[in-house]
Amino acid sequence: MNHSINRPARSGSGPVVALLLFDGLTAIDAVGPYEVLSRVPGASVVTVGKRTGLVRTDSGMLELGVGHTLEQVSHADVLVVPGGDVRELRADDQVLEWVRRIHRRSTWTASVCTGSLVLGAAGLLRGLPATTYWAMRAELAGFGARYVQDRFVEADRIITSAGMSAGIDMALHLAAKLTDDRVGQALQLLVEYDPAPPFDTGSPEKAGADLQRLALDLLGLPDAARTGTR
Amino acid sequence: MNHSINRPARSGSGPVVALLLFDGLTAIDAVGPYEVLSRVPGASVVTVGKRTGLVRTDSGMLELGVGHTLEQVSHADVLVVPGGDVRELRADDQVLEWVRRIHRRSTWTASVCTGSLVLGAAGLLRGLPATTYWAMRAELAGFGARYVQDRFVEADRIITSAGMSAGIDMALHLAAKLTDDRVGQALQLLVEYDPAPPFDTGSPEKAGADLQRLALDLLGLPDAARTGTR
Repeated sequence: MNHSINRPARSGSGPVVALLLFDGLTAIDAVGPYEVLSRVPGASVVTVGKRTGLVRTDSGMLELGVGHTLEQVSHADVLVVPGGDVRELRADDQVLEWVRRIHRRSTWTASVCTGSLVLGAAGLLRGLPATTYWAMRAELAGFGARYVQDRFVEADRIITSAGMSAGIDMALHLAAKLTDDRVGQALQLLVEYDPAPPFDTGSPEKAGADLQRLALDLLGLPDAARTGTR
Repeated sequence: MNHSINRPARSGSGPVVALLLFDGLTAIDAVGPYEVLSRVPGASVVTVGKRTGLVRTDSGMLELGVGHTLEQVSHADVLVVPGGDVRELRADDQVLEWVRRIHRRSTWTASVCTGSLVLGAAGLLRGLPATTYWAMRAELAGFGARYVQDRFVEADRIITSAGMSAGIDMALHLAAKLTDDRVGQALQLLVEYDPAPPFDTGSPEKAGADLQRLALDLLGLPDAARTGTR
């Protein structure tokens, strides 16, 4: 019934990218990689969730559309798991089993921000170096992963990214792996990624303890809400 | 009937941000600023479009939800106009009149990427320095604006950004203007914006002519489609 979805029609010879969407996701975790990977020649991006319809982002004021259920997508060349409030997701056996199933045959499985905790809960990070949102570094050890402080970390067929905006860096790297450096370079120009942040406070070390506390306050979630240790 | 929307309820003392969404928009143009501005203390982000429901992004594989019609939103402290395929938008008198009306009383009016062409078509850029997507630089002159090559350009109450990812830089600057530098700095950490692009090809000058051509090919739209010169 869903043959065209189970084996998504390729608009070219490019990869099929499955983007997992869920209530509480951080919008840019999904949209950063989407913007880059959707421009890979011939690529098709399939949005996947527990239900089709709309999911609401963590900050509550934006909705994204989900095109396909988990059951409708049984294969993808690339799996992207964004982060956000992943407490429910990382305890959802149906989701974790789907992640494992897609990963089994994917070329690349990627996460952004706390999406790595979902990969971890699915058992995919055991013994691997990985990264995650700066405030959640301690969580990775619980999944048998070794935290590495980097913009993104590639190990085996898995690429984990640091928080939110890091998904753009990761996706450009991934796009180049899927094609070649020249396409990666052109995609970086396409999204005009020539960053000039107004401050130099993008990492916890650069920001210092006071700004770390303020950032977590602004996030509006108690630390516990993002760790899953309710 | 829509008093609560015409004068949006403030969750605190923060700004009301109107984010214009439309079919053909570039997702990251909207989501980059959304991710930052929605975290400004007390801010509420209102998604606005010609119709409520869903809009489809330019690359066609992602949908965003529109919460309010133009008629339902008559005031915002901050207006954000993302870019993408703006051919219809910049010729739509209802949209342009709404942009002018919101701008009349906004504290800041901002654009990302080719969103500046909508501000230009609304007559807001006459005599001002402004910026836009790298491939569309020549278009700004037609609106009486003077193109400036920068990540974002502030003039009067208007802040225009360069392409796509530049909306993140702009929004951090804008968030600091709306609050103070300390909050801006904490927001940069919150979105973990410590960029480490895999290449050094994020501007047309750095990329060179060959990559510029490839980037426009990958964009999948003929140059004319983005200029409005059908």
